[in-house]
Amino acid sequence: MTFRAPVRDLAFALKTVGHSALMSQAFPDLDEDTVVAVLEAAGSFTESELAPLNRKGDTEGAKYANGKVTAAPGFAAAYQAFVAGGWNSLSADPEHGGQGLTGALGLAVFEMVHAANMAFGLCPMLTQGAIEALALHGTERQKRLVLPKLVSGEWTGTMNLTEPQAGSDLAAVATRAEPDGQGGYRLHGQKIFITWGDHDAADNICHLVLARLPDAPPGVKGISLFLATKRLVDEDGALGDPNDLRAGSIEHKLGIHGSPTCVMLFEGAQAELVGELNNGIAHMFVMMNAARLQVGVQGVAIAERAFQQALAFSQERKQGRAAWAPDGAIYGHPDIRRSLLLMKAKIEAARAICLSTGVLNDVARLATDEAARAVAKARAELFTPIAKAWSTDVGVEVASMGVQIHGGMGFIEETGAAQHYRDARIAPIYEGTNGIQAIDLVGRKAPMENGGVMDALAAEMHDTARTLAGSPGLEAVGARLEAGVAALERATDWILANKGPNALSGATPYLKLAGDVLGGWMLGLQALALVDATDDWSMSKAALARVYAAQVLAQAPGLAEGVMEGAADYEAVSAHALGG
Amino acid sequence: MTFRAPVRDLAFALKTVGHSALMSQAFPDLDEDTVVAVLEAAGSFTESELAPLNRKGDTEGAKYANGKVTAAPGFAAAYQAFVAGGWNSLSADPEHGGQGLTGALGLAVFEMVHAANMAFGLCPMLTQGAIEALALHGTERQKRLVLPKLVSGEWTGTMNLTEPQAGSDLAAVATRAEPDGQGGYRLHGQKIFITWGDHDAADNICHLVLARLPDAPPGVKGISLFLATKRLVDEDGALGDPNDLRAGSIEHKLGIHGSPTCVMLFEGAQAELVGELNNGIAHMFVMMNAARLQVGVQGVAIAERAFQQALAFSQERKQGRAAWAPDGAIYGHPDIRRSLLLMKAKIEAARAICLSTGVLNDVARLATDEAARAVAKARAELFTPIAKAWSTDVGVEVASMGVQIHGGMGFIEETGAAQHYRDARIAPIYEGTNGIQAIDLVGRKAPMENGGVMDALAAEMHDTARTLAGSPGLEAVGARLEAGVAALERATDWILANKGPNALSGATPYLKLAGDVLGGWMLGLQALALVDATDDWSMSKAALARVYAAQVLAQAPGLAEGVMEGAADYEAVSAHALGG
Repeated sequence: MTFRAPVRDLAFALKTVGHSALMSQAFPDLDEDTVVAVLEAAGSFTESELAPLNRKGDTEGAKYANGKVTAAPGFAAAYQAFVAGGWNSLSADPEHGGQGLTGALGLAVFEMVHAANMAFGLCPMLTQGAIEALALHGTERQKRLVLPKLVSGEWTGTMNLTEPQAGSDLAAVATRAEPDGQGGYRLHGQKIFITWGDHDAADNICHLVLARLPDAPPGVKGISLFLATKRLVDEDGALGDPNDLRAGSIEHKLGIHGSPTCVMLFEGAQAELVGELNNGIAHMFVMMNAARLQVGVQGVAIAERAFQQALAFSQERKQGRAAWAPDGAIYGHPDIRRSLLLMKAKIEAARAICLSTGVLNDVARLATDEAARAVAKARAELFTPIAKAWSTDVGVEVASMGVQIHGGMGFIEETGAAQHYRDARIAPIYEGTNGIQAIDLVGRKAPMENGGVMDALAAEMHDTARTLAGSPGLEAVGARLEAGVAALERATDWILANKGPNALSGATPYLKLAGDVLGGWMLGLQALALVDATDDWSMSKAALARVYAAQVLAQAPGLAEGVMEGAADYEAVSAHALGG
Repeated sequence: MTFRAPVRDLAFALKTVGHSALMSQAFPDLDEDTVVAVLEAAGSFTESELAPLNRKGDTEGAKYANGKVTAAPGFAAAYQAFVAGGWNSLSADPEHGGQGLTGALGLAVFEMVHAANMAFGLCPMLTQGAIEALALHGTERQKRLVLPKLVSGEWTGTMNLTEPQAGSDLAAVATRAEPDGQGGYRLHGQKIFITWGDHDAADNICHLVLARLPDAPPGVKGISLFLATKRLVDEDGALGDPNDLRAGSIEHKLGIHGSPTCVMLFEGAQAELVGELNNGIAHMFVMMNAARLQVGVQGVAIAERAFQQALAFSQERKQGRAAWAPDGAIYGHPDIRRSLLLMKAKIEAARAICLSTGVLNDVARLATDEAARAVAKARAELFTPIAKAWSTDVGVEVASMGVQIHGGMGFIEETGAAQHYRDARIAPIYEGTNGIQAIDLVGRKAPMENGGVMDALAAEMHDTARTLAGSPGLEAVGARLEAGVAALERATDWILANKGPNALSGATPYLKLAGDVLGGWMLGLQALALVDATDDWSMSKAALARVYAAQVLAQAPGLAEGVMEGAADYEAVSAHALGG
């Protein structure tokens, strides 16, 4: 199955979610032709260079032998082509060698990279996080010698957070950083689940590592961020000796076999401090927030890939009498058609949520008006956990629906649909599980400004609902969005009034509700943007908004009841009573 | 991870769903102690003999070499132990060597078999289908020489339906059956996706095969059912020469690796007609309906297994400060606890739906009162597609939630949670995809007696809702069930009033709605059965009913809107507009 880069949908989504006059504040000179040209070039690269490696990455995977990791067949050469094409430096600051394009456009490009080959995309994705961390908190030396290599992609980056006892709870990080008496440090410890922690696709690997000094305070306030490179870097930037760190093994995983997930052993590795001592968690959050949004984009990407494959299969496979296909193609069966439209509607909704979060990040960083920056920053913070969790849940759901449309063939590995189902499953887990995102949403984000950030969003969504209600063909979308926003407001009020276990036990349904409503809003905006167009593609956007409103938004009031149920029943039930 | 047979939950479910005075009509002498004793013995067998092979079945799987299939390591010996223990003959008619226990109890036993080892369970499950077909439609010779061997389990059975061009559409079956001039037939053709089509775990394999005579009418009315055994059977029952049929290959699948899925080649195989010429589809439906319910049970089973593993992990894994666990076990985190209770509630609901369908089948077969048989038969027919589709969707959903609770460990194959996620995915596909079940529900089952079967069910559910509304602690369950049943009635009316594409495009949400409401009713009945009990386990049933009502039933009115949306938007959208 070939991958076709969804350039038109991406360009449209970027245009629509950037239309709130926000984007022009950050990039006054950006014109649509440039956006489309970049998307087309990237799309072509992902179709021809990355997509063909996806299955081989799955079946053969990365290999570990003699303490070294070899990337999956073809991946190293593809990575070199990726770097040579300039795709790694798209959104980075020109000051560090980047091309200075918008972050939102960079996300759109990454969506295609992940869709073509999610295991491959993880390598440059992690590098982006390292770039952000060093750009914000790096020393002069790091910015001079390391950052440009990461921006170009000559070197790659990793995030070394997790340890066996420290997953969601980073306070438990135990890797030690001992001062070496010369201003540097030596790292001792073991990290697990390190994505692309070792490989042979680039000359050097820059590990950003959480560790604690021997005399550091306990908990999160004693954790610092360090940079340790696979090979040491001389003062002139040349590569020196291997550092005292290595991959101990790679994991045997459900999916993304082309991405080596390493156990990393730090055995006295030379390291430099990044940012302030004991402030490592805060610095790492810079990387994590960027990565969270990227993982949300992965959810969109894998869903898009699964959708394309299911759509193609549904046009080829013939079974029985199909109401809407004289040749019996299963695309003509109403039940199959319904699945496909719902898949597509959720993809478009998730795509718009992720790209709008990217736009907000751009505005928060670059808008000339300080108030505009602050507003955008707060909304981006609100959107980030939703973009990550809701979109990755959509990824799993759509990949599963894609298997289903294939019938028995979907369960056969050679078909390829099963790979998406396996690959998709990691996205709700890494970069903060979706449960952690939900807790972030109810504990930190929804309460921002005493609910004011959510209030402003709800007000905008009500406006859109009213416009929809007055637009021919979109009246029902308006009514359902109105009811959905009202349900979200009720749930938000309840969350703000109920701290602790009550709010926490409602966290996951609350995030789902917020994502469902936000997605409906986005599809409504897209339908309104094309309300006068009469071509097939444009009219399909209104159809998707209606399908989504009937199949998803209509359940928002019921979902809100689940949010507001309270913790009593959960608290009372013992594991023993459940059979444990 | 060890498997613990959920004997108490199963016995309780059987007792509760059999309490409507139905079961005693079919088995007046059945006492609860016998039920529990059988469940305990079966549970012990599945825990000690089948569960330990589950992972090896996944990692090593069945093997194909030199035209023969070898079962996964340990599976053949386990099968012999299964047969020796009498587990294969539990529910079969004593006239054919069976033990004559209730079919519902047999289903409960099979739930434990599938939970312990789903790939293994498929072998005797398919045999059950063959037993039913021969018991109803077999010739005297087949009943004398073949049926007792299938009942004892000495020989196994298969269903040979699917061909490359004939999946959901059996009208396209092309395998030829040529009369051999001596009253028999020779089969020529290729069948695919044949579960346990070949193996070395039993002496003989009895293939029930759909094929058509050279002069048969086209379509489903020209298909007949045949029996072809792997080895020929002499008149005295002794095994003769190998038949002209063989496995051509086995599939490389997403899951259930321990179950060999064969391409079967019929190369002039000797075969006997089963039942009437050209009535094979109707005869095969006997097997398929039994198998559909069994597959529903597989959904429950894999969910139970995944739940047990997640529950155990949540008690061992410590991360951060947990509101309800001083030691930090993640079972004490409200968000994790919520997931676990929702998993358990859906399992109990699906279990009750499947077992009650089994009870209805027993009553339809054995009750002395003809009117009672007819009522039970109609309701069993209504329940069967729901039991199959809704329970298997629960299987996938719960297995996915099980992976999620494990965090990063869930994505590592050695943990075992990923195997459940992979294994679970086949159940919504085989024995009629869940889309086919939904079409069966809206096209055939809901319209039975002009909606009268559904009306009678709704009336009973309203009664239960009223009782719940008057029971302390269950008032909200009653209110939500009441609203859910009303939503189901609205949707049913709409389905009955809208034939063709409108109803078909609402089929999948309608089945989900029906299952959601039916599940809520079952949990309500279970909570009422224990309303005066005060032990942990009993009180947890009320908590599960409340959780389910708030998290699932509350969305029924919104789901009904999705059912009643109509087909216009689906019909209008071209594949091209979607990117195809």
